[in-house]
Amino acid sequence: MSAYVTLERRFKRLADLGGAAAVLNWDQAVMMPKGGNAARGEQLAALGGLVHEILTAPQTGDLIEAAAAEPLDAWQGANLALVRRRFDRATALPQELVEATARATNACEMTWREARAASDYAALRPKLEEVLRLTREAASLQGAKLGLEPYPALLDGFQPGLDEATIDRLFAPLQERLPGLIDDALARQGRALEPEGPFPVALQKQLAKELMARLGFDFDHGRLDESTHPFCGGTPTDIRITTRYDEAEIVSAIMGVMHETGHALYEAGLPEPWRHQPVGEAHGMAIHESQSLLIEMQACRSPAFLGFLAARLAETFGQQPALAPDNLIRHYRTVQKGLIRVDADELTYPLHIVLRYRLEKALVTGDLDLHDLPAAWNDGMQELLGIRPPDDRQGCLQDIHWPVGAFGYFPNYTLGALLAAQLFRAAEAAIPDLLAHIARGDFEPLLAWLRTHVHEKASSLPLQGLIQEATGAELGTEAFLAHVGERYAR
Amino acid sequence: MSAYVTLERRFKRLADLGGAAAVLNWDQAVMMPKGGNAARGEQLAALGGLVHEILTAPQTGDLIEAAAAEPLDAWQGANLALVRRRFDRATALPQELVEATARATNACEMTWREARAASDYAALRPKLEEVLRLTREAASLQGAKLGLEPYPALLDGFQPGLDEATIDRLFAPLQERLPGLIDDALARQGRALEPEGPFPVALQKQLAKELMARLGFDFDHGRLDESTHPFCGGTPTDIRITTRYDEAEIVSAIMGVMHETGHALYEAGLPEPWRHQPVGEAHGMAIHESQSLLIEMQACRSPAFLGFLAARLAETFGQQPALAPDNLIRHYRTVQKGLIRVDADELTYPLHIVLRYRLEKALVTGDLDLHDLPAAWNDGMQELLGIRPPDDRQGCLQDIHWPVGAFGYFPNYTLGALLAAQLFRAAEAAIPDLLAHIARGDFEPLLAWLRTHVHEKASSLPLQGLIQEATGAELGTEAFLAHVGERYAR
Repeated sequence: MSAYVTLERRFKRLADLGGAAAVLNWDQAVMMPKGGNAARGEQLAALGGLVHEILTAPQTGDLIEAAAAEPLDAWQGANLALVRRRFDRATALPQELVEATARATNACEMTWREARAASDYAALRPKLEEVLRLTREAASLQGAKLGLEPYPALLDGFQPGLDEATIDRLFAPLQERLPGLIDDALARQGRALEPEGPFPVALQKQLAKELMARLGFDFDHGRLDESTHPFCGGTPTDIRITTRYDEAEIVSAIMGVMHETGHALYEAGLPEPWRHQPVGEAHGMAIHESQSLLIEMQACRSPAFLGFLAARLAETFGQQPALAPDNLIRHYRTVQKGLIRVDADELTYPLHIVLRYRLEKALVTGDLDLHDLPAAWNDGMQELLGIRPPDDRQGCLQDIHWPVGAFGYFPNYTLGALLAAQLFRAAEAAIPDLLAHIARGDFEPLLAWLRTHVHEKASSLPLQGLIQEATGAELGTEAFLAHVGERYAR
Repeated sequence: MSAYVTLERRFKRLADLGGAAAVLNWDQAVMMPKGGNAARGEQLAALGGLVHEILTAPQTGDLIEAAAAEPLDAWQGANLALVRRRFDRATALPQELVEATARATNACEMTWREARAASDYAALRPKLEEVLRLTREAASLQGAKLGLEPYPALLDGFQPGLDEATIDRLFAPLQERLPGLIDDALARQGRALEPEGPFPVALQKQLAKELMARLGFDFDHGRLDESTHPFCGGTPTDIRITTRYDEAEIVSAIMGVMHETGHALYEAGLPEPWRHQPVGEAHGMAIHESQSLLIEMQACRSPAFLGFLAARLAETFGQQPALAPDNLIRHYRTVQKGLIRVDADELTYPLHIVLRYRLEKALVTGDLDLHDLPAAWNDGMQELLGIRPPDDRQGCLQDIHWPVGAFGYFPNYTLGALLAAQLFRAAEAAIPDLLAHIARGDFEPLLAWLRTHVHEKASSLPLQGLIQEATGAELGTEAFLAHVGERYAR
C-alpha cells in the first residue's frame, strides 16, 4: 500500500471519530438529560484526546513525507496539503497547552454565562485574560509553523486562506457605505404590522419541514429538532439541524430554519468519494456562512419567495393582514440600529463585525489591553452605529466567541454575506429564470448550481480560486452593496 | 504513578469510548434517519477497533503483570482480575478472526431477517454455518486461555462465573415440575376480559413515566423513548430506555416499560466511584435479567401492585370492567402453550430456554449438525411443551441470537427469573411490610435493598458469592417454583 493510501486510512479513522463526536454533541444539545453532562464531557474528551494522538503521531509525519514523493492526482495532492496543514497546526501545540486551553475556555465559558447575566465584566476579565494569553501563545506557535503572524494564523484556522489584507480591503467600503444606506433605509422604511399568533408549534414544524424539503433537504439523511441555540450538526449523510419554537412568533423562526438548511445543504452536497478526507470537508467558516446566508438572505428573503411564503403562511395559520406579501416584505426589511449582533439586520450586521474584527485583532497583537475593552467597545459602537451600550451585557459581554477562545472567527459572518451576494448574482446570470423558480418554491435549479460550483468543490481549491471559479471574480463588496442598495434604499 | 493506577486510567478511557458507543447505538435505534446507517456503522467500527487496540496493546499486558505485584485493596484486586480476564479474552482472538466474525454476523443477521419473514431455513443455513464455525473457533481459543471448554467459555462471556453444571442442576427441576404446573394452570385459569382501547399514546407515555418515577427512575439521568425493539441503553448517569406504543393495547406495554426500568435501576445503582472500571460494571446478563424480572414479575405483577395499577389505569383511561383488579390479575396470569419465546408467559418461558440451551450446546460441541436443527427444534417443542411449529418462522428461525453469534446467551433469561424470585424472597424477609409499600406504589424500600445487596456490589464478588451474600443461599429453583406455584396453581 502506498504511503498516501495509508495516510488516507488514518484520516478516514479520524473522520469517523469526528462523526461520532458530532452526533454526541448534537445529542448533548438536543436529547441528553442534564445529569448526563459530566459523562458526556468525559466521552468527548476521550475522543478528542485520541484524535489528537493519532493526528500528531510521528507515523503521521513520516507518511506525509513519504506520500509527498508519490505520484498524486489533483484531489489527492490537495488532500495531502490539507493533511499536512492539519498535522502542522496540531503538532505546533504542546499537549500541555492544548489541555490548559481546554480547561481555561471551559472555565471562562461558565464564568461568562454568569458575568453576562450580571453584566459584570470585572468578573469575567481574569478568566478571559487567561484564555487570551493561551490563544496568543497557540497562535504564535502555529503561525511560526505556517509562516504567519499570530492573528492571521487564527483567521486561517477558521477559514483556510483568509488573510488580513483581504478583510481590510473588503471591510473598508462597507464601513464607508453602510452608514449612509442605514440612514436612508431608516428614513424611508414603513412600519410593518406584527403577525398575531398563536402559531401552533405542530403547524410551525410541519411548515418548516415542508420548506426544508422544497430547499432540497433530504429527511432520509437528516432531522429537524429543537435546542436552545439553533445549529447545524451531525455528518453529511445524517445532518441534524435544530430550531426553537415560540407560539407567539413565526416570521424570524422560519428564516432561522432556512438559514440552518443552507448550512445543511452544503454538508449534504460535499463530494461523496471524498467525504472522509480533509479535501472533502467544508472549506471553512466563510464559505459555510455564505451558504446559509445565500439561502436565507438572497433566496428566501427575496420578494419572489416572500410572495410564495406569504401564501403558505396564510394557508397554514389563517389569513391576516400582517401575513400579506407586502407586509411580510416590509417586515423582513426592517432596519434598526441595535446593540445586539444576533438580533441585527442585514444592513447593520457588518458594522457589528467590523467592531469585533478591530478589537480582537488589537487584543491578539497586544495593542489593546483587556482592561480597556469595555470602553473601546462602547466607543466603537458610538462611532460605527451611533449608539452606546448602557451596560456591558449589551456590549462586550454579549458574545460567546472570545470566552471560548474563538478569536478570528467573527470576520467570517460578513465575508459569508459578501460571498452569498456574489454567488447569488452568478447563479442568477447562469439561470435566467431563477427568481421565477424561487417564486414557485422551486429551488432545484439553484441547488444544482450550488452543488456544482460550491458544494462539490469542497476543499479542493484555495479560497480565492474557489470564488474565482464560481463567480468569475475575486471576492468583492460590489454584489453585496448592490443587493442591499436595491433591497433597502429604494 | 503505580502500574495499577496507570491501568485504571487506561480502562477509564475504554469506558468513555464504550459510553460513546452506547449513545451512538441508542441514537441509531431511536433517532437516526435511515440514510445515516452506513456512516454510523463506520463510526462504531472505528470506536470498536480503537477499543480493541488499546485493550490488547502489549503495554496493557505489562501493566497487568506489574500491578499484580502491587498492594491492592479488595475492590482493586477484583478489578485487576476482571481487567486480566478482559485482556485474556481479547488477546485470545487474532484480529482477522474478530473482523471475520463481525462481517459474518452482520451478513447473517441481514439474511436472517429475510429468511425468517419467508420461513426459509435453507436460505439462512450457509450463513449460520459460517457464524457457528467462527464462534466455535473463538470459543476454543478463549476457552484455552481461560481453562474452559468452548461452550462454557461462551457462557462465561455473557455471565462471568456461569458454568454448565450450575445450569444443569437448575434446569432439571424446572423441566420436571413446570409441565405439571402448566397443565394445572391451564385447567384452572379463567378467561380474562380484554381491555378495550383506544389508549391514547400521550396518556400511555404519561402513565409510564409516572410509574418509572415511582420505581425510582431519575429523569435527570435518563429518558424514555420509542424504538421498534424495546431496550435499555446509554450509560449509568444517562440511561435511555425505550418502548413502543400501540393505541389498542396497554396491558403488556406497561409491563414492558417496568421490565426495562428494572434494567435501568441496576445501571443507575452501580457504585459511583467505580463506574468507569470493569469492577464497577454490571455483573453479567443473568444478574441484569434478574433485576428486570424482579421489578416486572415479582414486584409489578404482584396482586399488591396490580391493585394500585388498576386504579391508575382506570383514572388515566376511564373505568371499564377489564381494568378491575381481579380481571387485571387474571390477565397477567394467563398461561398459554405458545410457539414464540418472546410472547411466552412466566411459566412456559423456561421450557423455551431449556430447548435452546440443549440445542446451542449440541451445536457448539458438534453433536448437532445445522442440517438437523429444524427437526431437533420441533421435536424438542413437542417433548417440552407438547406443540409442534408448523413452520420454521415459528420454530428455529424466531430468535436473532444465533444469527448474530450470541451462543451461550439464552440460559441467562431463566437464571435471571430464578434469581429474581430468590432475591425478592430475601427482600421480603428483610422488609416485613414490603408488599404493603408496593401496594401503595412505593418502591423505595425495595430499591434501597436492591441498591445495597445487588447494585452497589457491581462486579466485586464472584457470581455465587454475590447471590450467597444477598440471599443467604446458593442459586436454586425453590423460590421460583414456590412463586409460580402460588401465582398459577391455586
